[in-house]
Amino acid sequence: MTMTIQEQLQQKINNKTKPIGALGMLEELALKIGTVQNSLSPVISKQHIVVFAGDHGIAATGKVNPYPQAVTAQMVLNFANGGAAINVFTKQHNIGLTVVDAGVNFDFDASLPIIHAKMNYGTADYSRSAAMTMEEVTAAIEKGKSIVQALFDEGCNTIGFGEMGIGNTSSASLIMHQVLNLPLHECVGRGTGANDKQLQRKLDTLEEVSRLHELNRYDITPHQLLCRVGGFEIAMMCGAYLKAAELNMMIVVDGFITTAALLIAKQINQAITDFCVFAHCSDENGHRKMLEHFNAKPVLQLGMRLGEGTGAALAIPLLQSAIAFLNEMASFESAGVSTKE
Amino acid sequence: MTMTIQEQLQQKINNKTKPIGALGMLEELALKIGTVQNSLSPVISKQHIVVFAGDHGIAATGKVNPYPQAVTAQMVLNFANGGAAINVFTKQHNIGLTVVDAGVNFDFDASLPIIHAKMNYGTADYSRSAAMTMEEVTAAIEKGKSIVQALFDEGCNTIGFGEMGIGNTSSASLIMHQVLNLPLHECVGRGTGANDKQLQRKLDTLEEVSRLHELNRYDITPHQLLCRVGGFEIAMMCGAYLKAAELNMMIVVDGFITTAALLIAKQINQAITDFCVFAHCSDENGHRKMLEHFNAKPVLQLGMRLGEGTGAALAIPLLQSAIAFLNEMASFESAGVSTKE
Repeated sequence: MTMTIQEQLQQKINNKTKPIGALGMLEELALKIGTVQNSLSPVISKQHIVVFAGDHGIAATGKVNPYPQAVTAQMVLNFANGGAAINVFTKQHNIGLTVVDAGVNFDFDASLPIIHAKMNYGTADYSRSAAMTMEEVTAAIEKGKSIVQALFDEGCNTIGFGEMGIGNTSSASLIMHQVLNLPLHECVGRGTGANDKQLQRKLDTLEEVSRLHELNRYDITPHQLLCRVGGFEIAMMCGAYLKAAELNMMIVVDGFITTAALLIAKQINQAITDFCVFAHCSDENGHRKMLEHFNAKPVLQLGMRLGEGTGAALAIPLLQSAIAFLNEMASFESAGVSTKE
Repeated sequence: MTMTIQEQLQQKINNKTKPIGALGMLEELALKIGTVQNSLSPVISKQHIVVFAGDHGIAATGKVNPYPQAVTAQMVLNFANGGAAINVFTKQHNIGLTVVDAGVNFDFDASLPIIHAKMNYGTADYSRSAAMTMEEVTAAIEKGKSIVQALFDEGCNTIGFGEMGIGNTSSASLIMHQVLNLPLHECVGRGTGANDKQLQRKLDTLEEVSRLHELNRYDITPHQLLCRVGGFEIAMMCGAYLKAAELNMMIVVDGFITTAALLIAKQINQAITDFCVFAHCSDENGHRKMLEHFNAKPVLQLGMRLGEGTGAALAIPLLQSAIAFLNEMASFESAGVSTKE
């Protein structure tokens, strides 16, 4: 009888000099990564975070977000200057970082070290019309795919996605509302820090948006959902997820908005979660329920809610720890350690 | 009005380019480390893990442990050869590692790269008599202090402790039982992997030990408690904790046995937890309740139960992340990012 790769990995894990199961989630991660790579000695190479930035027409109304829309562009400049949290954490852990202008409402200087992939100057205000055209959605998905393909071609096999976009928790909430068929109040949270009054206004606004676009009533295709209430960064990330799975890469899933994009990607490719590790449980209301939908045990629970891929960046060292114990620890035999009596 | 260091740190944290509180526990860690170091720009230098190894007389009876006592010495050799989990994780994260023979029942070659501080060839069997003499306890505590002093003198300001000792979850359970005044069944767990029958035998044995040493009935001094049911590695770790606090070092607390040692150290110095960060919640029964006693929020929750300081080693990068965001992230002013409307 030939053993499956999972059985062989489990045997290798169990023979390490430690009680069975004593490394907890690290053992599950080792098993998962080894399975994806079909290898007893998996490697993580050229780990990378891609941050997709986009603006949302709804944000210009101020009905859903305490920070002004201009912050999206300001934060892209902050990323480019190395001053944001994701810069600090990727630098700390030797993780590559790429920032993408997927659709920010600002003209960046062409020399800025980002990927200039602006689809438009932010989405249309989905409280009045569809956020994007089908052409925009399709182009964004294709662009996301090509960005991941290029990183893969340079040797990257482990990737996480982040986002920046004032107002994009609203888009993520609407997507969650539709895909998981949940009432909006279970999907809407404080985002960057709405107070009670702002939260109520956000919820009221999104209830209207839901009615306008007939969410939670009929089946809607993933592309249609993106058109109606998505965002450029979310659509591009959706394509990025799909390509990463196609290329057999390990995907490190970040927080609320990135998991909303995964909800859509999973409608297109059900098998995508085979490639996913869930980095953390965000403090944003709704993320825990999304994780339950994926039957996911997040690696970290730090009460973070920043986006940018920061949760993914902090979890990658733990994936590396999982690989390291699998590849480097002695076995009971090699170390001459007795097993249980 | 002069601001306290905490207020100054909080202001610095709140001015970073992120929503207030969005880095969750990392913000709490930055505040804690900055407060301990009385600095707005704290540093972690020469982070180090010390693993104390010792044998337990009770383990020779086989009543409390599924692995044979010989594994303690075998694992010390495994540490010295770089093959254990703690070797892998400290190497991954550039953490110094020192292994101490506090009282292993084996004659190690003098050339082995460990600290040779054997107090005895394991403790006496505390199911029949006291585990250690008062002289042994005092000497072990002093040795633990001198080991930490030496690391501090070399520039280390952040330290974690680990342990290796077949049978030492029993000692930790008895300490917890006495210090927290809890029934033994709430303090006893499966250790390295006892099955149901072994667990019952362990509990029955420790109930007898508790009666013999009159635990959970009177006040007992920390030193007396160590004499009766402690271990050489636990006593030495106790001294190590005390010296680390005295030297204003950050202490990264690992799992069940190391937290039991902290319970004793805290009886000697109530202020010790001011210096402690709790690395993880162990899967060993009882650790969660110990953490509650300390009102501690563990950094990691990975379901690990290996000891050796492995939880501390995996948490140290997150302390470094906390320091890094505090020291390296841009402020709203410096990055030209707008604040809330």
